Amino acid sequence: MTAQPDPAARKYPSAQTAPSAQRVRDRTTRLATTKAELRTLRGQMTGTVAAVLTMGALHEGHLALVTRARELADHVILTDFVNPLQFGPGEDFEAYPRDLDADLALVDGLVDAVFAPSVEEMYPVLPPTVSVTAGRAGTVLEGAARPGHFDGVVTVVTKLLRLTDPHLSVFGRKDAQQLAIIQRLVEDLELGVRIEPVEIQRESSGLARSSRNAYLDDAGREQALVLSRTLRSAEAAAPSLEGIQQVLREAVARAEIGWDYALALDPATLEEAGPDHRGEVLLVLAGYVQGTRLLDAAVAVVTAP
Amino acid sequence: MTAQPDPAARKYPSAQTAPSAQRVRDRTTRLATTKAELRTLRGQMTGTVAAVLTMGALHEGHLALVTRARELADHVILTDFVNPLQFGPGEDFEAYPRDLDADLALVDGLVDAVFAPSVEEMYPVLPPTVSVTAGRAGTVLEGAARPGHFDGVVTVVTKLLRLTDPHLSVFGRKDAQQLAIIQRLVEDLELGVRIEPVEIQRESSGLARSSRNAYLDDAGREQALVLSRTLRSAEAAAPSLEGIQQVLREAVARAEIGWDYALALDPATLEEAGPDHRGEVLLVLAGYVQGTRLLDAAVAVVTAP
Repeated sequence: MTAQPDPAARKYPSAQTAPSAQRVRDRTTRLATTKAELRTLRGQMTGTVAAVLTMGALHEGHLALVTRARELADHVILTDFVNPLQFGPGEDFEAYPRDLDADLALVDGLVDAVFAPSVEEMYPVLPPTVSVTAGRAGTVLEGAARPGHFDGVVTVVTKLLRLTDPHLSVFGRKDAQQLAIIQRLVEDLELGVRIEPVEIQRESSGLARSSRNAYLDDAGREQALVLSRTLRSAEAAAPSLEGIQQVLREAVARAEIGWDYALALDPATLEEAGPDHRGEVLLVLAGYVQGTRLLDAAVAVVTAP
Repeated sequence: MTAQPDPAARKYPSAQTAPSAQRVRDRTTRLATTKAELRTLRGQMTGTVAAVLTMGALHEGHLALVTRARELADHVILTDFVNPLQFGPGEDFEAYPRDLDADLALVDGLVDAVFAPSVEEMYPVLPPTVSVTAGRAGTVLEGAARPGHFDGVVTVVTKLLRLTDPHLSVFGRKDAQQLAIIQRLVEDLELGVRIEPVEIQRESSGLARSSRNAYLDDAGREQALVLSRTLRSAEAAAPSLEGIQQVLREAVARAEIGWDYALALDPATLEEAGPDHRGEVLLVLAGYVQGTRLLDAAVAVVTAP
């Protein structure tokens, strides 16, 4: 298996690489809690390595990332670390769910290594003297109400990518801003890791899968379809940028859900795409349904105003 | 030669590794101006690699770094890049001296590769979306009057260390704050590079060598000895922290030069060492002589109040 898979094979996985086949628990999963242990395990891996970075509390969504990582590389390292640096003062770092035993049971046999360090192991001094910042791109959209959140994300991702030293790392497309910032991170700091986006998992209705969907009742789930429907309409308006932006504006104006934003962004800067923008745009949607914040996202290609 | 040389051999170089012997122009020096070319050259190097990071305008002081790098590793990569990110608005990035041909002539045969990229090659987008920050440690001392300077330094050092992928990198002890911040950088971001401090080169009078000494006349050079004399007195007061701090305070009070600061710092935080501090302290001195800013520095070990 090469580090750069056949694009066709990625879109239409063969029976051999279908998710079900990838769930075979065929590996001996080893646990590392210190950097030194991780270094030893990493040194024993030959061939390509994929990293799956998580904050634990693993569920089906994480397994989709693990499955993709298994398709793309010979070995998979899953990191399981609740990063204090990305929690703001009002956000409850202490209350974030932690259950390493359950996490290990879920991925047992599916990954080669789990790296679950303590906070002290990751940050002997907290906050660290030197850190990474996402700059302005970290202060908009999801970052607007969470000062420092994306700075904490890029700092821990830098550390974890250095420690796991993978050929590639997988990130979900639903956290579109996080994915875009991490793509800039690896380029801007020359981290030399390929970032592989993993498509959004959807229910047959179109609703993007999320553990937060559990907070919705049937009416809420129906209402939440506004997000994926808006995305489909926007995609249908491509390749016209103005067409896409009109769809998004009209959806927000209809106010069928509590919209936070529905924007077409320049993926390089995370600023709203200007009228002359051509190429990829990132469609990012966020809004509230029954008090629950939901996200959805897609990529479109723009070739006309 | 191993990545971790014998400490004894490092303190007392044998005839084989004496500076004169290290000036033999015994290598074929190759130039890379793109990341791709550098990657190719780096891939051809077997054994250990040392990186010497410079902004060009090379002189004898840089050759001391090259000599040390040659002692410590099988291959030496010298980077030659004037980093726009570490220049403030008032500082003249455009006027900084650049003469790649002269630089290449000076290190020809002494290093294996020179990496001299364009600004566009290093920063396709300037400023980059994601960058590194030295936080508070970059805003004190030399950073106080140069907002953003150390952030620019740690960003380019991160990029250059990733691109050159060395086992170790050498930095002079005279830029003590820069050295301390870079030591924190490699630990905090897990860069996996050994930082090897290179001792300050001194004239027989004790004056730390600097290209800025050329601005001083004989009286100025005499006056400038206040710096090294103060350091020696402070070192003589070790292992008492209060003794050291008294020496530094009294020197500043005598005002024989235009002192900016003379401090004993906690090397981990670059804050002034508190009364309970034990272990290494960084003695950092800065002041003006005949209008020229001069620096000096040393490390002392404190075991008593």
